[in-house]
Amino acid sequence: MATARHRSRDDRIPAHPDIHTISLQQVLEALVDPVRRRIVSELYAAREDLACGTIDLPVSKSTATHHFHVLREAGLIRQYYVGTSRMNALRRDDVDEAFPGLLCAVVSERDRP
Amino acid sequence: MATARHRSRDDRIPAHPDIHTISLQQVLEALVDPVRRRIVSELYAAREDLACGTIDLPVSKSTATHHFHVLREAGLIRQYYVGTSRMNALRRDDVDEAFPGLLCAVVSERDRP
Repeated sequence: MATARHRSRDDRIPAHPDIHTISLQQVLEALVDPVRRRIVSELYAAREDLACGTIDLPVSKSTATHHFHVLREAGLIRQYYVGTSRMNALRRDDVDEAFPGLLCAVVSERDRP
Repeated sequence: MATARHRSRDDRIPAHPDIHTISLQQVLEALVDPVRRRIVSELYAAREDLACGTIDLPVSKSTATHHFHVLREAGLIRQYYVGTSRMNALRRDDVDEAFPGLLCAVVSERDRP
């Protein structure tokens, strides 16, 4: 039973892509959307993992789920569960290694007037 | 006559936007297109201004003209005429000042395997 539960929990989130298989094109397509950029900026500023529900977004829950999915597929975030909460971690080191300077340049807009 | 010719030459290219009126959203929408990113990368690598016709692009001339237009409107390039050649200058200092690190991060893909 314990094994079954453990497998079931893992299955709730698909495998995360190796950052080296991600193209700049895919990352830019993820980051060009302002809602997705807002998620990334919130995670960057928080400097800790955040549950989906704690990030205030101007879209429906199902649309937000889609945006998190795109970010995960683009290698920008890692998702995992804590209980029933889906947590989001910015893959900052991975992205910085694969696309140096990009993340910092894209989240810095919150500092602009 | 000389004045009229001069005015006519200036009129061939609209005014260029002040970089401080450009949003990150507009710059990313310009850079998310691979053909436009190729133009920017070519200008970045060349370290000199290039005529439109000298940049090899996998699109028709009219489509290329559209891409140059989008880059100009996004504050990424400055265009001017030398005789009948429309020249393109990357606004590197302007963009670096407004969006630190972005240009470098986006053109570095040519160095990736």
